[in-house]
Amino acid sequence: MYGPGDVRVEERQEPRIVEPTDAIIRLPATCICGSDLWPYRGLDTPDWPMPMGHEYVGLVEEVGDEVTTIEPGQFVVGSFFASDNTCEICRAGYQSSCIRRQPVGASGTQAELARIPLADGTLVATPDLPPDELIASFLAASDVLGTGWFGAVAAEAGPGKTVAVVGDGAVGLLAVLAAGQLGAERIIAMSRHEPRQRLAREYGATDIVEERGDEGVERIMELTDGLGAHSVIEAVGTQESMMQAIRAARPGGHVGYVGVAHGVELPGEELFYSHVHLHGGPAPVRRFLPELIDLIWNRQIDPGKVFDLELPLEEAPAGYEAMDERRAIKVLLRL
Amino acid sequence: MYGPGDVRVEERQEPRIVEPTDAIIRLPATCICGSDLWPYRGLDTPDWPMPMGHEYVGLVEEVGDEVTTIEPGQFVVGSFFASDNTCEICRAGYQSSCIRRQPVGASGTQAELARIPLADGTLVATPDLPPDELIASFLAASDVLGTGWFGAVAAEAGPGKTVAVVGDGAVGLLAVLAAGQLGAERIIAMSRHEPRQRLAREYGATDIVEERGDEGVERIMELTDGLGAHSVIEAVGTQESMMQAIRAARPGGHVGYVGVAHGVELPGEELFYSHVHLHGGPAPVRRFLPELIDLIWNRQIDPGKVFDLELPLEEAPAGYEAMDERRAIKVLLRL
Repeated sequence: MYGPGDVRVEERQEPRIVEPTDAIIRLPATCICGSDLWPYRGLDTPDWPMPMGHEYVGLVEEVGDEVTTIEPGQFVVGSFFASDNTCEICRAGYQSSCIRRQPVGASGTQAELARIPLADGTLVATPDLPPDELIASFLAASDVLGTGWFGAVAAEAGPGKTVAVVGDGAVGLLAVLAAGQLGAERIIAMSRHEPRQRLAREYGATDIVEERGDEGVERIMELTDGLGAHSVIEAVGTQESMMQAIRAARPGGHVGYVGVAHGVELPGEELFYSHVHLHGGPAPVRRFLPELIDLIWNRQIDPGKVFDLELPLEEAPAGYEAMDERRAIKVLLRL
Repeated sequence: MYGPGDVRVEERQEPRIVEPTDAIIRLPATCICGSDLWPYRGLDTPDWPMPMGHEYVGLVEEVGDEVTTIEPGQFVVGSFFASDNTCEICRAGYQSSCIRRQPVGASGTQAELARIPLADGTLVATPDLPPDELIASFLAASDVLGTGWFGAVAAEAGPGKTVAVVGDGAVGLLAVLAAGQLGAERIIAMSRHEPRQRLAREYGATDIVEERGDEGVERIMELTDGLGAHSVIEAVGTQESMMQAIRAARPGGHVGYVGVAHGVELPGEELFYSHVHLHGGPAPVRRFLPELIDLIWNRQIDPGKVFDLELPLEEAPAGYEAMDERRAIKVLLRL
């Protein structure tokens, strides 16, 4: 990306092993993330040009000398932060805050090849080479499914709980799926887009709320005897969505927030009297990968459905455009 | 209180049963709370004059027709919000957000008599009339102990955990005690006042950090292998103390905040990347009262030690002055 709205597909130097703990993978497909739209819309201002992409799956081509558990020929899934998976923070389940974490996106995975640091700690192999129809789902596991799942776990979605989901992007929709898998009794998806509402229902939403902001909160209150939801998952990252999530939760309830915060300021006094639990941040996807891979491999979940537009990598600019204009939920780029 | 710094002791009309769920209690002693200093210092602007006091214990004198579990002659402990203790929010342990909650402090418990609404749900009787030397501890249970305890529970203090406490007022000191009771391995009290440090140690603090702000955070990092504390209890309520608490916690750690938030704005992006759990608010003291009363009755804890100045009620203005100037941790007013 050369600047807001300016995405170009170019030849770059092939990645190679730099550290003995690296792996090089070849991607069968890659994708565009909702968070890639922040710089596309000029709301993030990185150093231009910026290599794009932080979601990835692929065939291991080569590993560094110190890699012991991952080997060439395996099909692997990883996430946006490389982690050693052995430090105290990783062992507590926060691999995305690993003391040795490295952003995989720094070199961009919207590409045919990618260098993955800390391969042993970061990558999880599938049981065997996956059939083509599972690729999209594994690609979803790499970020949007893992992130929605973390949101649901952070919000303590579970049996007997009413869960509300703020945001109907891929992460929000997969948070609906996650809440269902975690056993939630009732799942309220907040969406005003018919195709997204349909997918939300398919993923287990029992109710749809089209209203936003204060009106959206009011509707949640009506649906929950005036108490608010037990669990609210925030999957947008704006001031409005955060306040909507906090206000939609009951006292003692849990807000799991996974939308990358942009310009958010939380009023301390309101938060204090809300009595909610607040937890979130960059999802430790690595924590959930073994379980997510199992669920996908055994065809118990189909997160790949969030990809409603497929393009060849060369047409990436059109993919960004489609997501920016909300014509597509999520774009898969074929290689 | 007639205005900032202006406290007067006056004759007022005796409280009487208004609702059939009320009780009238006679207080053997009452006390001044750190949160009473917000209006005293002009940082809260209530409608003047304002009756003061929200902490109370006492002998039940009279109950309304619908009160069934509390009876005259019992010695009872309650908390600052009256609650029915039967609604869904109460049953989830958030009595201070009860759907029928009423602030007991509205009529002021720095007085000889007090009307307590929702007596059945709000008051907990001691096993028998307590000896005089336990009165101070029961009075502490009514708020500062219950609040410190909630802070420790919200911060998930427990076995194997390193707990840091921001704030060395009565709540902070009793949060130290609570963390110890909950089995914390290491308890770091942040205090620069020698008498408070001493009481913190007596209550179980293993380390004292005198630095504040960024330097205080740095010291916590040094004491925790650069990771931060597992649990941080915030017991002040300012922007500085909240940020100190959030920054002193490790990724995946828990911040329990019980200082009444004043002028606090939490930066969303920093919170997002901090990966902490945030929970707090007005303590649901009622949840903990049965256990706290047991611990005090059996002399397993001595929270009454936070009272380091005793005055007759008539000298309340001097008590406020002593607390405002930090000459006293907490003032007990004898009746």
